[in-house]
Amino acid sequence: MAEEPTPVQPEIDEASESVPGWRPGRRAVLRGSLLVGAGAVGGGVIGGFAEPAIASSGSPNNTEPFYGTHQSGILTDTQRQTVLAAFDLTSDNRADLVALLKAWTRLGAELAQGQSVTVPIHNPVGGSGDAYADATGGSTTDDSLEAYGLDASRLTLTVGFGRSMFVGADGGSRFGLGGQLPAALLDLPHFSGDELVAGDSGGDLFLQACADDPQVAFHAARSIARIAPDVATLRWTQLGFSPDNQGGTPRNLMGFKDGTVNSNVHPPSDPDRTLWAGAEGPRWMSGGSYAVYRRIRITLEHWDRIAPGLQEQVIGRQKLNGAPLGGGTEFSPLNLEQRSAQGTPVIPVDAHVRMAAPESNNGAVIIRRGFSYNNGTTPFIERWPPWRQALEYDAGLLFLGYQKDPRTAFVPVFGKMAESDALNQFTTHTASAVFAIPPGASGPGDWIGRTLLG
Amino acid sequence: MAEEPTPVQPEIDEASESVPGWRPGRRAVLRGSLLVGAGAVGGGVIGGFAEPAIASSGSPNNTEPFYGTHQSGILTDTQRQTVLAAFDLTSDNRADLVALLKAWTRLGAELAQGQSVTVPIHNPVGGSGDAYADATGGSTTDDSLEAYGLDASRLTLTVGFGRSMFVGADGGSRFGLGGQLPAALLDLPHFSGDELVAGDSGGDLFLQACADDPQVAFHAARSIARIAPDVATLRWTQLGFSPDNQGGTPRNLMGFKDGTVNSNVHPPSDPDRTLWAGAEGPRWMSGGSYAVYRRIRITLEHWDRIAPGLQEQVIGRQKLNGAPLGGGTEFSPLNLEQRSAQGTPVIPVDAHVRMAAPESNNGAVIIRRGFSYNNGTTPFIERWPPWRQALEYDAGLLFLGYQKDPRTAFVPVFGKMAESDALNQFTTHTASAVFAIPPGASGPGDWIGRTLLG
Repeated sequence: MAEEPTPVQPEIDEASESVPGWRPGRRAVLRGSLLVGAGAVGGGVIGGFAEPAIASSGSPNNTEPFYGTHQSGILTDTQRQTVLAAFDLTSDNRADLVALLKAWTRLGAELAQGQSVTVPIHNPVGGSGDAYADATGGSTTDDSLEAYGLDASRLTLTVGFGRSMFVGADGGSRFGLGGQLPAALLDLPHFSGDELVAGDSGGDLFLQACADDPQVAFHAARSIARIAPDVATLRWTQLGFSPDNQGGTPRNLMGFKDGTVNSNVHPPSDPDRTLWAGAEGPRWMSGGSYAVYRRIRITLEHWDRIAPGLQEQVIGRQKLNGAPLGGGTEFSPLNLEQRSAQGTPVIPVDAHVRMAAPESNNGAVIIRRGFSYNNGTTPFIERWPPWRQALEYDAGLLFLGYQKDPRTAFVPVFGKMAESDALNQFTTHTASAVFAIPPGASGPGDWIGRTLLG
Repeated sequence: MAEEPTPVQPEIDEASESVPGWRPGRRAVLRGSLLVGAGAVGGGVIGGFAEPAIASSGSPNNTEPFYGTHQSGILTDTQRQTVLAAFDLTSDNRADLVALLKAWTRLGAELAQGQSVTVPIHNPVGGSGDAYADATGGSTTDDSLEAYGLDASRLTLTVGFGRSMFVGADGGSRFGLGGQLPAALLDLPHFSGDELVAGDSGGDLFLQACADDPQVAFHAARSIARIAPDVATLRWTQLGFSPDNQGGTPRNLMGFKDGTVNSNVHPPSDPDRTLWAGAEGPRWMSGGSYAVYRRIRITLEHWDRIAPGLQEQVIGRQKLNGAPLGGGTEFSPLNLEQRSAQGTPVIPVDAHVRMAAPESNNGAVIIRRGFSYNNGTTPFIERWPPWRQALEYDAGLLFLGYQKDPRTAFVPVFGKMAESDALNQFTTHTASAVFAIPPGASGPGDWIGRTLLG
């Protein structure tokens, strides 16, 4: 066992105080107004230590808009990296939740501009907050800086509310919100094949941070999590990645172009009908959406032993060019009626694309943001010949599906797929969540959640 | 419990055979000669199914050289993503090991050109190999295609040999290699603070796959692993990332520029003295190197509560610009003698940079490739006030240090740091391995490991 190192003690604050220029300089800057565009790293050197002179952590370029009728990160072109995080609220105080959401919104707007953190990190409600940080001379106000010098990398932050934020496990109202629970924010039924890990599922609050740079995405999620250690704690996090989006729909780890029909790369022509909540539900959700998250483990070792021609029968598309079986291009419509000379359907009856197609689901559309994930290797028992026990990838797909109402989209569509999609023999759903994604903040001063809690 | 889906049965091969054009076309191509530069996606459509006409998965651009005196991936500018993998050999047959390394080399050279896999995946030794794949009409020869259409993304593949490939747990020789074991390929001693997870440590064979695209790196590691399921199996995998390398040394998750002195970004002026093995060891390692891998968990939640000025005392550098305490720029030499007006060292006696500096270690240099990692959140008990129990990040640094001889570099340098580096109170080493990195393959026909096994 290692010798325990000496913990940092509050009196070491003196060492910090011996660093002139740093704290007053940084705080003066960080608590001041935003200085977007003051891009050059510089500042005077006082007593040998740099005095930072800017709050921006990069250029104002390469940004996605944060404010808007809808939250960003839904129809935004999929970025290369995502960090998903769910939080459980540890406070019962509605004012804490309001302060947290105001702080998240303000911070999110700054991060999306590629700026350093200027929002007081701890205790958004006010008061002294974190005695240890105060005693060490520390302040969780300070940016952790791992993204300093990088640009915004198209960062988007999308915030959601879980059903458990509205009603407790006993069915009682939380934060006085029980009466505001949308019927669309349902508990998903158990689907055939579900093997869900509770600790990786659900949550009171949800954050989807997406960016082209992995460290920018992580920095954003970390900064959001740091804001309120006494109000909300992390429940789970999950990283995902997507290949460079050259030339259309990215390929998933099965090697197929994934989500050509139901994809944010090819947005629906009528989003008010399929994506955005409207007058059919509570007013506070108007302009919002509902996200269904599923972590789908794929048995890549099994898949890799199947002939490509058979893989195409399972998916219903050609592997190389993504065209539906039967011909055409990636974006050709599915011809679900076409039959071979022998009379069998060219797109098999249990093919994945047939199961997922709007034509097979009363027109239901789910706007997908798919990311690959790889959580390393875990022990696994194969359920195919030669039935080996081995360490295999815990890897696959992070499915993020956005829709107007899961009751008429994800639930019936996936319910049918869970029963008979040919793909099921290669996949296992291991995590799941549903979140209400409220409308966006309209501009500085507005905040995500105002329509519910303001 | 889910209803068990119907397993794919060998007779489904008929479905595959009903897909004209795919298998003959693809195999004819994949088993043919390399077609570098035949970049356009195309090919005829036979019976409604695409006939692939190329083996290249992208442009020949954006490549790093594969062949050379030394393996790539050591002095190569650090890419954005890494997939590390260790394998245990399941065969005792030297011919299997030779065939595996020949196949890995051939495949590695193709992947580094951005090509699809053309190497027979299973059973490199010959014979029918995989009965299940054969019976389903499958062939693990076929590229899994998730990187199809992407360029090489500066992919490098670096192969290493663990001590356990030479000697078994009982001390006996494996593969007849016991007498070839380099003294430098040591078992690391236990260091103060080690909390190593055996399943994430060690291994007979090592692969470092680095690329700017996450899916290209994963595809490479997956393809390498698929080559020989009957010869070597995965022991562990670990993903890492590095921010866009704009403007010099990347920052780690502590927010500091990391490895300015010991970094492949700033290679040593005399690599034959510090990096490449020479006449001092076995001839087969001449031109090789030794890699030490350490997965270092960082208590980010603790670090974030410490004042930046104190963080700078721990590291010995300024956080914003990376200059040593005492002033200058990032690349200014450390002034380890400088004292303040009060007589105390400006760079504290236990500061990380002082501990790691060649001046403090008889000139020892370690060429670092550092990546950040985030394996999600795990339960954690804080050892600092207020001593919470919480879900916290299993995140930190993947340290990959290359050197001529760990006995005169990593072992003494880190041995001292493990005792007294101020950084230790924020870090825990959770995985560890040492690998001999043999010299590179000189060109087509040569193979990594030939100097040892040829």
